[in-house]
Amino acid sequence: MTDMMQRIVLAARPQGTPKPADFRLESLPVPTPGKGEILVRVIWLSLDPYMRGRMDDAKSYADPVPLGGVMEGGTVAEVIASDHPKWQVGDIVEGRFGWQSHAISDGAMLRRLDPAQAPVSTALGVLGMPGITAYVGLNDHGRPKAGETLVVSAATGAVGSLVGQLGKAYGLRVVGVAGGARKCAFAVQELGFDACIDHRAAADASAMRKELAKECPAGVDIYFENVGGKTLEAVLPLMNPLGRIPVCGMISWYNEGALGAGAASTMSMPALWRSILVKRLAVRGFIITDHYDRFPAFLAEVSGHLASGKVTYRETIAEGLEAAPEAFIAMLGGGNFGKQLVRVSPDPTRG
Amino acid sequence: MTDMMQRIVLAARPQGTPKPADFRLESLPVPTPGKGEILVRVIWLSLDPYMRGRMDDAKSYADPVPLGGVMEGGTVAEVIASDHPKWQVGDIVEGRFGWQSHAISDGAMLRRLDPAQAPVSTALGVLGMPGITAYVGLNDHGRPKAGETLVVSAATGAVGSLVGQLGKAYGLRVVGVAGGARKCAFAVQELGFDACIDHRAAADASAMRKELAKECPAGVDIYFENVGGKTLEAVLPLMNPLGRIPVCGMISWYNEGALGAGAASTMSMPALWRSILVKRLAVRGFIITDHYDRFPAFLAEVSGHLASGKVTYRETIAEGLEAAPEAFIAMLGGGNFGKQLVRVSPDPTRG
Repeated sequence: MTDMMQRIVLAARPQGTPKPADFRLESLPVPTPGKGEILVRVIWLSLDPYMRGRMDDAKSYADPVPLGGVMEGGTVAEVIASDHPKWQVGDIVEGRFGWQSHAISDGAMLRRLDPAQAPVSTALGVLGMPGITAYVGLNDHGRPKAGETLVVSAATGAVGSLVGQLGKAYGLRVVGVAGGARKCAFAVQELGFDACIDHRAAADASAMRKELAKECPAGVDIYFENVGGKTLEAVLPLMNPLGRIPVCGMISWYNEGALGAGAASTMSMPALWRSILVKRLAVRGFIITDHYDRFPAFLAEVSGHLASGKVTYRETIAEGLEAAPEAFIAMLGGGNFGKQLVRVSPDPTRG
Repeated sequence: MTDMMQRIVLAARPQGTPKPADFRLESLPVPTPGKGEILVRVIWLSLDPYMRGRMDDAKSYADPVPLGGVMEGGTVAEVIASDHPKWQVGDIVEGRFGWQSHAISDGAMLRRLDPAQAPVSTALGVLGMPGITAYVGLNDHGRPKAGETLVVSAATGAVGSLVGQLGKAYGLRVVGVAGGARKCAFAVQELGFDACIDHRAAADASAMRKELAKECPAGVDIYFENVGGKTLEAVLPLMNPLGRIPVCGMISWYNEGALGAGAASTMSMPALWRSILVKRLAVRGFIITDHYDRFPAFLAEVSGHLASGKVTYRETIAEGLEAAPEAFIAMLGGGNFGKQLVRVSPDPTRG
């Protein structure tokens, strides 16, 4: 009898918020690696907000997932068969195998992980793509100076939690924005932020701005943007002259489809443009794939902080590949707490 | 009999577009310089779009002109009395004496001009504040590379005309946007732009975008923003990944008062934010007073271009201080052609 594998494909392009029927779980025989190839078993699948963009047909910085195609995603996997000199059975690797239980690879674009250095799941979080996103966004585009004030939205997410902790390491005042009292308490007590505003407790942008202003008595020098929406509108008037806004994401707007003139915002373009001009703001969109030359510097610094305990992280784990769609949908609504992972198969390196 | 001088003060804060009654012409005795002071006679007054911002009470990067206060502005003036060792009668200086015929100064913040080097009125234009604005905006915030495409709005204005000519000197494709066929012809024939789009001939942003797209077959790498409005909306979808938008002005929106949510724009905040993120744009507001350390480099380069004929300029001259309000109002509507000046008194250096 042939061994079977599972994969999740894009069944339909979502209208607004994705629903379970936009995904389809498929079973098929585990493929056999050819000459020079390896076969891997996926252990951890990373769920990330950018995946919402890949589900749309809109032109973006990356091609959309085709209908019927396997959902893209970063993974940690174990090599279970190899005809490749560089890779041995039992190796744990990080690679973009997507939402599936097994995959074939020619061995390129993989990174070998050392389970003795850090839990291998961190290669998808604090020591992986979200980590370098936080590092590059804060350092290269935020250009922090000790004593400045940093506001970070999605503050307990995989990116935001490292942004804020790095900010503290650099001597900044750090104020998070997160959804719910539990996340806010975590940001202050576990991540060491100076304060955290609960956007769910604020009726509107104006109410949130009042809360933020209290915690940012010297104004805001860097706003690390992960969400857009109400939080952006709350922060913008608090920005100091020569402030920086690294634009990393806009999760509150990801489900609005083509984002036409009708998409929700109470702020006008002229008002935004006037803020940028009068305050001489530097607003910089960035996509981490443009910046992988910074990976060695990032890894050296953040793995050091992780080892010394200066930086910590939190994971939310969904069990089994079939749980991925619901976990992804929940994450878009803020249901995760820290890095959202799917345990696709048992992690042999975890006790 | 005492000699009399004239000055123009802010009589009322404008609602929308300024009107003549928002200004008041006053006559008063010419003051007598005290110990260590000089008396100047203003020759040239510069009219610039930023002055519209100073008429509002809104918080900005500079304090507003108080009601009853002399309108601010850059001038070229002649020293006609001096008790200051550094300044002699007959010296031609550039300084911020505002909308008036005479002024007293302690001699600080003045720049001596050499009429043999260039017409002294250029100290208010191509070799002055508009010039360094063009130079810093294009070089420091636009970061041009030969072969790229630059779009500049208000293309025949004091700033835009130098932006485009510098762009050509740096090997860029340069496409201007200006109001009217006459200005567009000037941009191409006299300033050497590759093309110029007449925004008055375009029914809306979408029509303008089609014209721009034809002239920018490789997309837009730098949009030098002077106007906001329809032009911004036309250009934004044409921006290339990693494009740069130096935000120097937004003259089409200056008369919209406090620029609340109702100010005119058909583009939504989320759509703009998505462009910035997906295209990894660098949007940078700037105010030239932050960058006067660049003055020597600017002056060396641009005075060289001017001497060699690589850079040219055009002036619109209003005659007499009393003509300043109407000329200023016309300029906000695009009525000027090149640098808008007021000849307050005869220029002894001009033939």
